[in-house]
Amino acid sequence: MSGNTLGKLFCVSSFGESHGPAIGCVVDGCPPGLAISEADIQAELDRRKPGTSRHVTQRREPDTVEILSGVYEGVTTGTPIALLIRNQDQRSKDYSNIAETFRPGHADYGYWQKYGIRDPRGGGRSSARETAVRVAAGAIARKWLTERYGIVIRGYMAQLGPIEIPFNSWDDLDAEGNAFFAPNLAMLPELDAYMDELRKSGDSIGARINVVASGVPVGWGEPVYDRLDADIAYAMMSINAVKGVEIGAGFRSIVQRGTEHSDEMTPAGFLSNHAGGVLGGISSGQDVMVSVAIKPTSSIRLDRRSIDKAGNPVIVNTHGRHDPCVGIRATPIAESMLALVLIDHALRHRAQNGDVQCPTPRIAALAPEGTQAVASPRARGD
Amino acid sequence: MSGNTLGKLFCVSSFGESHGPAIGCVVDGCPPGLAISEADIQAELDRRKPGTSRHVTQRREPDTVEILSGVYEGVTTGTPIALLIRNQDQRSKDYSNIAETFRPGHADYGYWQKYGIRDPRGGGRSSARETAVRVAAGAIARKWLTERYGIVIRGYMAQLGPIEIPFNSWDDLDAEGNAFFAPNLAMLPELDAYMDELRKSGDSIGARINVVASGVPVGWGEPVYDRLDADIAYAMMSINAVKGVEIGAGFRSIVQRGTEHSDEMTPAGFLSNHAGGVLGGISSGQDVMVSVAIKPTSSIRLDRRSIDKAGNPVIVNTHGRHDPCVGIRATPIAESMLALVLIDHALRHRAQNGDVQCPTPRIAALAPEGTQAVASPRARGD
Amino acid sequence: MSGNTLGKLFCVSSFGESHGPAIGCVVDGCPPGLAISEADIQAELDRRKPGTSRHVTQRREPDTVEILSGVYEGVTTGTPIALLIRNQDQRSKDYSNIAETFRPGHADYGYWQKYGIRDPRGGGRSSARETAVRVAAGAIARKWLTERYGIVIRGYMAQLGPIEIPFNSWDDLDAEGNAFFAPNLAMLPELDAYMDELRKSGDSIGARINVVASGVPVGWGEPVYDRLDADIAYAMMSINAVKGVEIGAGFRSIVQRGTEHSDEMTPAGFLSNHAGGVLGGISSGQDVMVSVAIKPTSSIRLDRRSIDKAGNPVIVNTHGRHDPCVGIRATPIAESMLALVLIDHALRHRAQNGDVQCPTPRIAALAPEGTQAVASPRARGD
Amino acid sequence: MSGNTLGKLFCVSSFGESHGPAIGCVVDGCPPGLAISEADIQAELDRRKPGTSRHVTQRREPDTVEILSGVYEGVTTGTPIALLIRNQDQRSKDYSNIAETFRPGHADYGYWQKYGIRDPRGGGRSSARETAVRVAAGAIARKWLTERYGIVIRGYMAQLGPIEIPFNSWDDLDAEGNAFFAPNLAMLPELDAYMDELRKSGDSIGARINVVASGVPVGWGEPVYDRLDADIAYAMMSINAVKGVEIGAGFRSIVQRGTEHSDEMTPAGFLSNHAGGVLGGISSGQDVMVSVAIKPTSSIRLDRRSIDKAGNPVIVNTHGRHDPCVGIRATPIAESMLALVLIDHALRHRAQNGDVQCPTPRIAALAPEGTQAVASPRARGD
Repeated sequence: MSGNTLGKLFCVSSFGESHGPAIGCVVDGCPPGLAISEADIQAELDRRKPGTSRHVTQRREPDTVEILSGVYEGVTTGTPIALLIRNQDQRSKDYSNIAETFRPGHADYGYWQKYGIRDPRGGGRSSARETAVRVAAGAIARKWLTERYGIVIRGYMAQLGPIEIPFNSWDDLDAEGNAFFAPNLAMLPELDAYMDELRKSGDSIGARINVVASGVPVGWGEPVYDRLDADIAYAMMSINAVKGVEIGAGFRSIVQRGTEHSDEMTPAGFLSNHAGGVLGGISSGQDVMVSVAIKPTSSIRLDRRSIDKAGNPVIVNTHGRHDPCVGIRATPIAESMLALVLIDHALRHRAQNGDVQCPTPRIAALAPEGTQAVASPRARGD
Repeated sequence: MSGNTLGKLFCVSSFGESHGPAIGCVVDGCPPGLAISEADIQAELDRRKPGTSRHVTQRREPDTVEILSGVYEGVTTGTPIALLIRNQDQRSKDYSNIAETFRPGHADYGYWQKYGIRDPRGGGRSSARETAVRVAAGAIARKWLTERYGIVIRGYMAQLGPIEIPFNSWDDLDAEGNAFFAPNLAMLPELDAYMDELRKSGDSIGARINVVASGVPVGWGEPVYDRLDADIAYAMMSINAVKGVEIGAGFRSIVQRGTEHSDEMTPAGFLSNHAGGVLGGISSGQDVMVSVAIKPTSSIRLDRRSIDKAGNPVIVNTHGRHDPCVGIRATPIAESMLALVLIDHALRHRAQNGDVQCPTPRIAALAPEGTQAVASPRARGD
Repeated sequence: MSGNTLGKLFCVSSFGESHGPAIGCVVDGCPPGLAISEADIQAELDRRKPGTSRHVTQRREPDTVEILSGVYEGVTTGTPIALLIRNQDQRSKDYSNIAETFRPGHADYGYWQKYGIRDPRGGGRSSARETAVRVAAGAIARKWLTERYGIVIRGYMAQLGPIEIPFNSWDDLDAEGNAFFAPNLAMLPELDAYMDELRKSGDSIGARINVVASGVPVGWGEPVYDRLDADIAYAMMSINAVKGVEIGAGFRSIVQRGTEHSDEMTPAGFLSNHAGGVLGGISSGQDVMVSVAIKPTSSIRLDRRSIDKAGNPVIVNTHGRHDPCVGIRATPIAESMLALVLIDHALRHRAQNGDVQCPTPRIAALAPEGTQAVASPRARGD
Repeated sequence: MSGNTLGKLFCVSSFGESHGPAIGCVVDGCPPGLAISEADIQAELDRRKPGTSRHVTQRREPDTVEILSGVYEGVTTGTPIALLIRNQDQRSKDYSNIAETFRPGHADYGYWQKYGIRDPRGGGRSSARETAVRVAAGAIARKWLTERYGIVIRGYMAQLGPIEIPFNSWDDLDAEGNAFFAPNLAMLPELDAYMDELRKSGDSIGARINVVASGVPVGWGEPVYDRLDADIAYAMMSINAVKGVEIGAGFRSIVQRGTEHSDEMTPAGFLSNHAGGVLGGISSGQDVMVSVAIKPTSSIRLDRRSIDKAGNPVIVNTHGRHDPCVGIRATPIAESMLALVLIDHALRHRAQNGDVQCPTPRIAALAPEGTQAVASPRARGD
C-alpha cells in the first residue's frame, strides 16, 4: 500500500531510477490464461520510446523489456508478472552540475526535503523515464481488456501550447512521421514549425492530451470514494507534469445548464456524452473521455533563478537531453494509465458482483464522438 | 479497501443512504490526544447544512452528529471514532415517481446497472447527503492539522455559471448572508439575481470552487503514484458532481512556456506558485491550490427524455427539493476532502521519515496569492 | 487499511468501547441481492450473548443490532452495511478501581503505553465485548457463503483446561443447557463441576476451540502471502485471548513423516485430511479445519502483583463481572472469523479468476472427519 | 494489495518461479538513510542457501542478489528497492514426469484448480525457493530494526521430528557444521544420525522452529484486528509447510490457570513471559516469542497414491532434489518474516503516534529466557 503501487487488485509495483541499473515493476493480480509476450509489451514501449524524432530527447534507450515471471509457455499463470527494463544510455555527467542545486519547477527540491537524500542522476526516481514502466504494465491491461470486453483505448494530442488540434480521424495517428500523436495530419507542418522555433529558443511548452476508452461495460466504479472517474483522476494526475484532469465536459460544465449538460437517454441510446461515460462514479456504457493538462518541461536551457542546498542564490540552466514538450510523448502513457484503472475496476466489479452475463437491450449512443454505447448486461451478484 | 473507505492511514469508512435510518462513518487511525467534541464537528456540518438560504434545497436536516467511540473525556484515544447522523426529514413520496425511471445525468442508471438493485429514495447512496459524512470526518482532520502544523484550509466559489467572482478577501466569506461562499461581497447582488432567475426557470447551473491549504510542510506526498496532487485529484473527483480538477496553474499550463510556469526560487522564497504547492507530487511548502469544476444538478423540474427500467422512452422531470446549483454548498465539502488527504499524507510521511523536526532557513514566497511558503524543517528518517 | 478493518474486499470496519455509547461496524463490499434481516444477525449474536449460563459473565446485554444502511426492502444493495449495537449495562464503577493500575496479562498496559491514554471503563476498546461486532458481521458472511456455495461453518469446544472433550456429534451442540458448545453431551456434568470449582476458586482457565468449514470450493487463497491459512491464522489470532492457531494436523505435523502427513488422493477422493483443507495456501475442497488455543482470563479475583501508572508496586484483583473461561463463549466468534476470511477470499478469487462454473468430476473424501471433499469446478479466468 | 505483497507500509512485493528466469521483490516504504549493501543481504541469503550440508537439497544456487534501485551511494533513498536473484541451477527434466499428476500434500493441485494453469517446473511459484526473497527483504528490515532500536531477532530448531532439542546457548548456533540451527551442540550427533536414516528411507519429517525478537519497544501493534501477534501469525503461516503458530505459551495456555499464565509485573519488571511479549495485540516490551510447526516435505521418493489431471489414479514418487526436512532451512526464513512484521508495525505505530521519545522508568524482566524487557518510552501522538 505504499506510494509506488498502483491499483487494488491489478497491482503494479514500480521501481527504478533514471540512471540506476534498471527500471521495472511487479504486476500482481493479472487474470490467468492471457496470452502475452515480450513483443506485445515492446510494441507499446516503442510508442513512447525516446529518440524517435527531432522534437524529443535524443537519449537513446532501446527500452527492451524482459518478462521475469508469471508467464508460462506464453500464457499468464495468475502469479506475479515481473517486468525488467535495463537502463542503457546513462550520461550522468549531464547532471553532475545540478546535484547541489534545485531546478525551478522540478521535483528535486521536494525529494531532497522529503527524504533528506536524493539520487540526482537524471532526476533519479522523479524522471519521466519511470513512465516506461506504466506503459509496459499497461500493455498487459490493454490486451486483457480488449480480448475480454473488446475495449479500445486511444489517445491523441488535442493542443500543443497555443495550437489547438481539431480532431480529424483516428487513422491520422498512424501516419508516417506523425511524431505528435496528432489526430489531424494537416496540422503537422504547423506543429513541426512551432517545435523547431521552441527548441531553438531553449524554452519549453505545455500540451493537452485526450484519451478515450470505447466499449467499457456499464457498471464499473466503486462509489462513493473509489469512483471510476476519481481513480482516473488519480492515475492521470500521478503522471509527471500533469496539472489538470477533466472527465467529459470537465470545466465546461461550469457554464452549462442542466438542460445542456445532462445527457438525455432514448431506447436508441444516449443523445450526448457530456458525462464522459461516467455517472455517479460508475461507467455508463458510453465512451470514457478524459482530458489532461501537461505543464511545460521544467528542465530548460535558459537561465533561471534558484537556490542551492545551502539556500544560497544560484542561476540554473539545464543542458541535459530533455523534451521541450513532454506532452509529445505523453499519449501512450495516458492511455496506459486509463487501461490500468479500467482493468482494476473490472476485477473489483466482478469481485462483488460476479461476472455472469445476461442479455439486455443494447443502447446505442449518438454522442458527438459517434461512439457506440455498450449498455452491457448488468453483472449479477449471484 | 473497498470503495467506501477513504485514506490509507487516516481512514474514513462511510455509510448511509439519503432516506435510510442514518448516515455516518468510522474514522480509524486518528492520532491520540486530540481534543475533539461534537460541537467542533457540528460547527463544520452547519456550514454545508441544507435549508440555509433560498438558493439551496429546503430539506430541513439538523444534521446532528453523535460521537459513538474513540473519544474519552473529550480527547481522542487512538481507537476508531464512529460518527452517527440520523436522518430526519425524509419525504420518500418526493421520489416515488422516479423509482422506475432514470434521471438524465444522474447516478441512478449506473447503480441499477451495477448492482441490479437500488434504493431510489432520495437517490439512496448516490445522494449528495453523503457529503455530510465527509465534512464531519474532515472536521477532525482539520483540527489536528491546525493544532499540529498551523495549517489553514479555506475555500470559496470562484465562478457561478457564467459569472466569474474575483477574489477580494477571505473576510468577505464570513459576511452575514453570504450564502455563496463568495470571496467578494460586491458580487452578492448579481449572484442572488442570477440564482433567482435560474430557480424560476427550473434549470440548474455549474460552478467553480477553489480551495487553498496554507502552512503545509514541505515533503508530503508519496510518489510516483500516491503523489499529493494525485490523491487530491482523486478526493476531489470523488465528490458528487465534480467533473474536473486543477492543481496550481492547471489547464493554463498548456499554453505556458517553461520560463513562465516554473516557479523560480530565491533565498527569500518562491517567486510564484504556478505549481500550486506541489512539485513532483510532493508539497513544496507553498500554498496547496486546488480548483474544481462542478456540473449542474441533474435533478431539474424541466422535461427531459429518458428511459425506464424496461428500456421504454419516458419523460422525466424532478420536483423533489434539489439545489439548482450544488456548487453553492460544495465549498465546505471540498475543504474537508483536502483536509482528509493532507492528514493521511502527514501520517504516511512520518511513518517512513519520522517526525523529528530540525531548524532550517524559512523561505518566504511572494506568490501572486501573497501566501507565505513554509519550507518546513525536513523530516529526518532516523 | 488501519488496524480496525478486517478483509480486503469484504471489509469490516469495527468501532466501539465496552462502556461507550455503542459498538458496531461498517461492512463494505457485500455482494448485492442477499436477503438479510436484523433477525438473521440477532440469531448469531444471541449465541455469544453474556448471561446465558452461570459459567459466564452475568453482565446483561441484549446486544440488539440495528441495520443502519445497505439493505433495502430486506435485500443488500451492494452499498455499505452499518451495524449498530447500543451498550446497555455499563457499571463503570466496577472498573474505577483499576483506572490507575495494570492487570497482569491484560491489554491495558499496552494501550496506555501505545497511545498515552486509555478508556479504562470495562477494558475500553480491548474488551471482549468488541467480538459481538465480529459475530454480527460474520452472520452476513455466513448467510452468503451458505446460500451461494452451501458452505457450513461449525465450531465446538475441544478441550476445557485439562479436560479433553472427544467429538461425539454435531447434534449434541444443540442440546438444551449445553452452555459449553461441547460436541459431547456425556461430558457436560464433568464440565459443569469443573467450572463450579473454578468459579469458587476465583481463578480462570484456558480452552481449545475447533472450527470446521465444509463445502469450501477448491481454489480459494492468494499465495504466496495471502494464503487462505495465513489469513485464517491472522483472523483467529486477532481474537482476544487466542495464543495459538493450527490448521489440520497443526503441531502434530512436527512428528509426522511425509508418508503419514501427506494426504493421498484417489478418484474417489482424498484418503485423509492432515492438511486441514488447505494445500499451498489454497483450499483443496476438503473441510477447512482450524484449532485455536485460548488463554485463561486475565481478570481474576485473586491477588496479583502489578504496578501502577507511576511504576509503583501494587496488588491487583478484579471483582468485575468476568468469564472465568472466555473460551466458553468463543465458539461463535471463531466461526464468524472463519466466515469473514472465507467470504473475503471468495470475492478475491473471483476477482482474478471469474466465477463461471464448469462441470468437473467430484472427488469424494474419506477423511477421518467423514467429510465430503467438494472438488468444485475450477474457476476459469476468462 | 494482491496476495504477493506483504506489509502495509514496509511493503514487499514478491515475484518469481522456481525455474523461471529469476525471483525477487520490490521493497517499498523503506525509511531513507539506511546504509545497505548487496553484501548485507547476501549474508542473510547464505544462511538459507541450499547445498550447504548433506541433509538439504543438493541444488546448487549461489542466490546472488542484485540491488536494482532505491539505494544511492550505499544508502537507501526512500524510493522502492528492487532485489533480483537470477535462477541458475534449473533441471526441469527432474520435474517433467509430474507435470500431469499431483503430489499428495503438495500445492500443485490447488494451483491447477485455482488458475487452470500452472508452471510445473520445480513447483513453479509454490516452490520454497520463493522464501529466498523473504530472507533478502528481511535483511533490510533487520538492519533497520537493529540500528534504530537495537532489536535482535534470533531463531533456532526446537524439535526435529520426535527429537526435542533443549535450548543450551545462542552461541551454539554459530558452531562450525551446525547445519540444523540447533541451539545445543550436544544434540548434533543424534540429529545427524536421524537425518541419515531418514534420507535412506526416502521419507520426510516435520520440525519446530522458535523465533525470538529482543528489544522490541512497548506499544507496537494495531488492534483490534492488526494485532502484532495476528500479523505474526499471518506471516508465519504464509511460509511454505507451516501448519501451526504459537505466541508465548501458545497451546500450553489451554491447561494454564490465570494465576499461572498471566505475567505479574513489579517495578523491576515482568516476572514471566507466558504472553510471549504481546498483550492485547500490542508489544509489552518483553521478548516477542514465536513457535511454528513445519510439516514434512510432500515431495518424497516413496510411492504414494494420487490422481492425474484427468482424475485417473496414479502412483507418484518424486526423485527431484528435495529437503527431507524443510524445517532445517526454515530458521532464517522465520526470522525474516518476524523482522518484516516488526518493521511494518514500527512504521505504522509512528504514523499514528509519532516517534518522539521521552524518558520513562525501565522495567527489567526476569522471564525464563532471561531477556531484558525494554518498556520503551511511550510514543507521543503530538
